[in-house]
Amino acid sequence: MPDLDPEEFRRLAHRYVDWVADHRAGLASRPVRDDVVPGSVRAAFAAEAAEEPQELEALLDRVDDVVVPADTRWQHPGFHAFFPANASLTSLLGEIVAGGLGPQGMLWSTSPACTEVEQAVTDQLARALGLGEAFTHTGGGGGSIQDSASSAALVALLAALHRASGGTWRDTGVSGTERVYVTAETHSSLAKAVRVAGLGERGLRVVPFAPGTRTMDPLALAAMLEVDASQGLVPVMVCATVGTTGTGAVDPVREIAVAAASHGAWTHVDAAWAGVAALCPEFRHLVDGVELVDSFCTDAHKWLLTAFDASLFWVRDATALPAALSLTPAYLRDSASDSGAVVDYRDWQVPLGRRFRAMKLWAVLHGQGLEGLRAHLRGHVALAAELAGRVRAHPGLELAAEPSLSLVCLRVRADDDGPTRQLLAEVNATGRAFLSPTEIDGRFVIRVAFGALTTSGQHLDELWTILTRSPAIGAAR
Amino acid sequence: MPDLDPEEFRRLAHRYVDWVADHRAGLASRPVRDDVVPGSVRAAFAAEAAEEPQELEALLDRVDDVVVPADTRWQHPGFHAFFPANASLTSLLGEIVAGGLGPQGMLWSTSPACTEVEQAVTDQLARALGLGEAFTHTGGGGGSIQDSASSAALVALLAALHRASGGTWRDTGVSGTERVYVTAETHSSLAKAVRVAGLGERGLRVVPFAPGTRTMDPLALAAMLEVDASQGLVPVMVCATVGTTGTGAVDPVREIAVAAASHGAWTHVDAAWAGVAALCPEFRHLVDGVELVDSFCTDAHKWLLTAFDASLFWVRDATALPAALSLTPAYLRDSASDSGAVVDYRDWQVPLGRRFRAMKLWAVLHGQGLEGLRAHLRGHVALAAELAGRVRAHPGLELAAEPSLSLVCLRVRADDDGPTRQLLAEVNATGRAFLSPTEIDGRFVIRVAFGALTTSGQHLDELWTILTRSPAIGAAR
Repeated sequence: MPDLDPEEFRRLAHRYVDWVADHRAGLASRPVRDDVVPGSVRAAFAAEAAEEPQELEALLDRVDDVVVPADTRWQHPGFHAFFPANASLTSLLGEIVAGGLGPQGMLWSTSPACTEVEQAVTDQLARALGLGEAFTHTGGGGGSIQDSASSAALVALLAALHRASGGTWRDTGVSGTERVYVTAETHSSLAKAVRVAGLGERGLRVVPFAPGTRTMDPLALAAMLEVDASQGLVPVMVCATVGTTGTGAVDPVREIAVAAASHGAWTHVDAAWAGVAALCPEFRHLVDGVELVDSFCTDAHKWLLTAFDASLFWVRDATALPAALSLTPAYLRDSASDSGAVVDYRDWQVPLGRRFRAMKLWAVLHGQGLEGLRAHLRGHVALAAELAGRVRAHPGLELAAEPSLSLVCLRVRADDDGPTRQLLAEVNATGRAFLSPTEIDGRFVIRVAFGALTTSGQHLDELWTILTRSPAIGAAR
Repeated sequence: MPDLDPEEFRRLAHRYVDWVADHRAGLASRPVRDDVVPGSVRAAFAAEAAEEPQELEALLDRVDDVVVPADTRWQHPGFHAFFPANASLTSLLGEIVAGGLGPQGMLWSTSPACTEVEQAVTDQLARALGLGEAFTHTGGGGGSIQDSASSAALVALLAALHRASGGTWRDTGVSGTERVYVTAETHSSLAKAVRVAGLGERGLRVVPFAPGTRTMDPLALAAMLEVDASQGLVPVMVCATVGTTGTGAVDPVREIAVAAASHGAWTHVDAAWAGVAALCPEFRHLVDGVELVDSFCTDAHKWLLTAFDASLFWVRDATALPAALSLTPAYLRDSASDSGAVVDYRDWQVPLGRRFRAMKLWAVLHGQGLEGLRAHLRGHVALAAELAGRVRAHPGLELAAEPSLSLVCLRVRADDDGPTRQLLAEVNATGRAFLSPTEIDGRFVIRVAFGALTTSGQHLDELWTILTRSPAIGAAR
């Protein structure tokens, strides 16, 4: 038969597991990333796939030769770019089981376990994060695992469009009058969702920041909603961000939700990166006001040890997504579905098929416990506080924004951006740390986003040494 | 640190791999699915996640107790429902490596290898399937791995909307005049894509079947396009299906593409299940006319040994998806992207983040070779031909449609649907085979979709015995 038999798999998979263990053990001694010439990886492949089967043991050699030198090492302790993408070894155990089972969980009946483990772990996490019973499956709402916060924002918008239309959206589509409210710091995935949903750029309304902040001004929001509504436009959704990508800013969720509700608009909270920190009591304020919102998203695959993809997405009304998204052809009709006693997650997402993603999240919860998760989060927040303190005390550097959890935005003290650009290039060229940029008020800024699995004080010290010995700082002083 | 260290992982992952090998080895002796009481899996979980870490070895016991008895066993040789979801052990090796590397491939620069392996393997498969150089990255088009054919259809539609609008769609959204053309056999994901894109049900035009077929009538399509265009409507996309979900019907791609092109509409081919069969010369006719279409989708995660998710999606114009979907905030700006020398796959999909899905596909191509894949496909097609022959010769059964590749649609010879419904229930109650229904011309029909990894002649014989000893057939005769 054209697959491995279980004994061949056992032997080979042990080898593959060993490869992973060795790769992770040796990761810190490699650069975070290499200089890769575009096309060089593709050039290592023949134009035509091989006709005959090849040894799977040899594939690991190919991976060593072709892939490893051209990877960007998100699991490296010196990776502080973008936001982290924790592919913990704990979660990979869950992935192994999920792959071995291999269900396709589009309907409850196509794998009751796949569906119900997802319900159970999202309920547990709703409680652990302090979202409240209203967001659990036992409380009339419920959680799901989406592939990304982008997709979560999209389905939130679709549910909001359906609700705002009084149920006509499914038949007649969008009217062009619908409006979605964000800020200049809101993640680009919201603009993408607005585009995908057919509203176009004109459907997006950018609410100003409150004075002296980078967070949504709820008074300005209220005024925009009022004006738009009076002009016959339809406020459909407001997105409040808890921990923006640029600077980690936290919008005032409560005030936003109140303003949105007064116009019947859906409030979605995008807490993709920061939301998981609400597991810690001292960061529970991140979910303040959540009892007033319609949906909440945070990514277990960023900073919560769970390999991509595992975006956690909760809604207060469990019927909202199926009402917007359900479609049942004859080949998907099912008595369990008809009974109303089960959740069919296909109606909570755009794709039909779905993997058993809850298994890796369960492995993380089981293997680390909430205590382990909190220790992970707190460790990185402490690193950021330490770095921010050093930046404040350094004559050549300055904070470009207040640090937020594990994110520090800094730049070289200078009148122009040249030295900061130079500093970023120099740090990244060392291969010992990898940072990424953003812009604040038109100025170029370096983001340091701690959060990789094995980043510790030693890596902060190494980063600090690299930063402070840079000629870019000297040149600016 | 709150993750396993590599040595702990090595030890535990060997155990997990052994669990998978044992599970697969014992799969055929279990039922395909069990009767599961809704809520019973959730009931095995505490309301609150544990505070303290627990032994990860013990998680396997929990999986045995809670998950295994409540799974629907898509990898079981008696699974002939829906379409297959081949989670081959070969592809799981690729998943192990992908998880160990753990990149997030949103941009080329965030893992050049993740992006370029995907380019290389989709180029190889474009050639192996006979799509032609135009669909390769070296030929001006290119392939990508989407999570599902649903998502592929959606992004095809978004690119089509952008193109049809002359580039205004990104700014002003849909106008309500756009129309998408399908048949009653087209997969529901197309209707879902039309809904998601904001066109509503009214945006969907159902083209009649050609007389005596269940395939799109290209003359009727041409007439509808003409009438719609003359009324100021905008034909945006036509979906031709190669292997419908209901009966495996194959739309006339060439004639459809010609009709669509004459109105500037995008032709998308949804060959989610059947397209992979074009690897075999004798089924190459499945891609006849593909040189005229704009996009083509087939799922490696159905019938091509690759664990979900791995939907292969090619476009003729590599700029079409980025033109529609690109959005670049400051924190994603990147010099490699700006150079134009690389593909950033985030612009080919709705989500921003992405896994290293190409790794498992590479493992399958490497470990099985095209020969192995063809043997896999041909084996199931032979089973379907054998079953269809037996049904034709049986006095109590009849084919409800011509068999298509590995799909057979049958029913009990009777004036009403009762006996066929009874037969399906009886077969599924045995636990030795699992079949799913569809409807043809309002009649209830049983689908037998061969394609599970280990299904062989012995499982066909077992199914045949179960079918033919059913009282439902006797009652009807």
